[in-house]
Amino acid sequence: MDHPYQRGGPRQRRDLQPVHPGPQGRGCRGRPQDPRGPRRQRRRRVHRAGRAGQGEREHRREEVGLTGDSALHRPGAAPFTERTPRVVAARKLTRRAEREKTGRFLAEGANAVEAALEHGGKVYELFVTERAAAQHERLVIAARAAGVPVSPITDRAADGLSETVTPQGIVAVCALVDRPQETVLKPGAKLVVVLVDVADPGNAGTVIRVADAAGADAVVLAGDSVDPHNGKCVRAAAGSLFHPAITRIRDVDAALKACSAAGLRTFGAHGYADTELDQVTFAEPTAWVFGNEAHGLPQGVLESVDLAVKIPMYGRAESLNLATAAAICVYTNAMASRAAST
Amino acid sequence: MDHPYQRGGPRQRRDLQPVHPGPQGRGCRGRPQDPRGPRRQRRRRVHRAGRAGQGEREHRREEVGLTGDSALHRPGAAPFTERTPRVVAARKLTRRAEREKTGRFLAEGANAVEAALEHGGKVYELFVTERAAAQHERLVIAARAAGVPVSPITDRAADGLSETVTPQGIVAVCALVDRPQETVLKPGAKLVVVLVDVADPGNAGTVIRVADAAGADAVVLAGDSVDPHNGKCVRAAAGSLFHPAITRIRDVDAALKACSAAGLRTFGAHGYADTELDQVTFAEPTAWVFGNEAHGLPQGVLESVDLAVKIPMYGRAESLNLATAAAICVYTNAMASRAAST
Repeated sequence: MDHPYQRGGPRQRRDLQPVHPGPQGRGCRGRPQDPRGPRRQRRRRVHRAGRAGQGEREHRREEVGLTGDSALHRPGAAPFTERTPRVVAARKLTRRAEREKTGRFLAEGANAVEAALEHGGKVYELFVTERAAAQHERLVIAARAAGVPVSPITDRAADGLSETVTPQGIVAVCALVDRPQETVLKPGAKLVVVLVDVADPGNAGTVIRVADAAGADAVVLAGDSVDPHNGKCVRAAAGSLFHPAITRIRDVDAALKACSAAGLRTFGAHGYADTELDQVTFAEPTAWVFGNEAHGLPQGVLESVDLAVKIPMYGRAESLNLATAAAICVYTNAMASRAAST
Repeated sequence: MDHPYQRGGPRQRRDLQPVHPGPQGRGCRGRPQDPRGPRRQRRRRVHRAGRAGQGEREHRREEVGLTGDSALHRPGAAPFTERTPRVVAARKLTRRAEREKTGRFLAEGANAVEAALEHGGKVYELFVTERAAAQHERLVIAARAAGVPVSPITDRAADGLSETVTPQGIVAVCALVDRPQETVLKPGAKLVVVLVDVADPGNAGTVIRVADAAGADAVVLAGDSVDPHNGKCVRAAAGSLFHPAITRIRDVDAALKACSAAGLRTFGAHGYADTELDQVTFAEPTAWVFGNEAHGLPQGVLESVDLAVKIPMYGRAESLNLATAAAICVYTNAMASRAAST
């Protein structure tokens, strides 16, 4: 029996969220047009109810718990399309401004939806395609048990709610996860990751996943860093967005000061630093600070951190990318400080 | 002054190869149509020579060393287009079958071209856009000094030679880098990375870069793993494709046996393993074996390796992605074995 790669424990769920979906997934995918048009009032549900194949579709929906006692889904109701007002409203959440305005975002994929239901505070609604509902029956049942409205959607509607190249067909509308900095950076935190001006949402999400795996208490998105609620970040984080505390601090200096005030020693990852990672003693609570993918940490940050640290380059590579560098630094720290405390 | 992120030494070149180019780079990019058509014999160079702006273009090309003593580039010659037979021939190298047939591949990007010229064996030709030539003047000069023909190309031709979403405008035609296994897996190797059935070229390239940084002697692409000469792999490897020895072994069992025969202890990364990474002693030469992104290592491989190892999950993340997991395992090993030997 094949097992999913690098699991922490013997769970049975399949890994549905590869961060790199592969070249075959990267084609040009047509987006539905902006659905606010003269046709938005069409009552497609009524027209579709009697179509051929409806019986079989209904049967399968029944199996996965989308009908029955749900007040929303009368037997015979067709899935929401990209023109259904609630899907239209949800789709707007792919825009940062709309997320800020409404305080909501889209958590796409089984990992993210599961984490949202387990740890994530408020989940307003769950959209699932028929196929995804069949694959993730357990999640659909859990959502309904938690009182979350579950709405079936068409593949095309799922496409419109996805910011990734391989839509998963399961998307939850959730409350934003970030919290005020004073509730996140406080004495007692042992390991914190600070991203300064990180531009790529896939990188940010991968680092949030690594931080979670390493047991970090918090991830700070500082300066001009990407919105962690961006769909690509949510996908790359594979559920971890809901685990460490997340905060956004626009002023990088203030972020570093808040880390110090919380009793954290600040380490800046920097390719030209004098101190190499394997020379560092990890005895105290630490905040690891990583910079932009192309430019690294600004000089001011390098002067502010307690220690600049470089990853030793044993071969002929000049550098590592942000996510792998963060993985090495944060895990080396986590493993060493646990070894020291036992 | 900002410095590039996580460099190994104080070089001045800018990092032009972020592995994740960011959302703004991920749009749908038009490809030129298949250039083998009735127009392929058009002599566009002659028609273009007298166009407005030619004087300025010529002047800039002169500055970056594309004219002068090159037998190829007469003053007044226009850049190659996507229809120029040599560009058409090079473009075919984006297909695996053509790479196998000709023994050549395309190394795109400044890092890859530099590494190819420094370490990579045979470079047959260098294509550069005007803008890339101005940015990478040193590389163009190095190529010409090494006797490599340098051909200016249009942006559109560069697009056709690129398999990534943000073409770099500088592409070398190189001899394939992989070598016979017996020249790669031999006694004396200290650290080897084996990828089994790894499907995504970006992942493979990132792992090759990590392996290089950690000082690995070789990377083995085993089983159904992606072709390391795929453009996305080359780009993600950021030059490292030319550093560790690369070999491809179709038979996974044979690959593991070859590792053992070379005196390497084989470690399989596996999420359900009993042994955690921080409990392992890294005294001997090691081969790290990583599996497919979604399915991990096949059961047969887990039974064949000397030790299955898992990365401890300290938080609530279930798993890590392939590249970050490989980075943690391989670097932990490299740092520990160096500490043990000093």
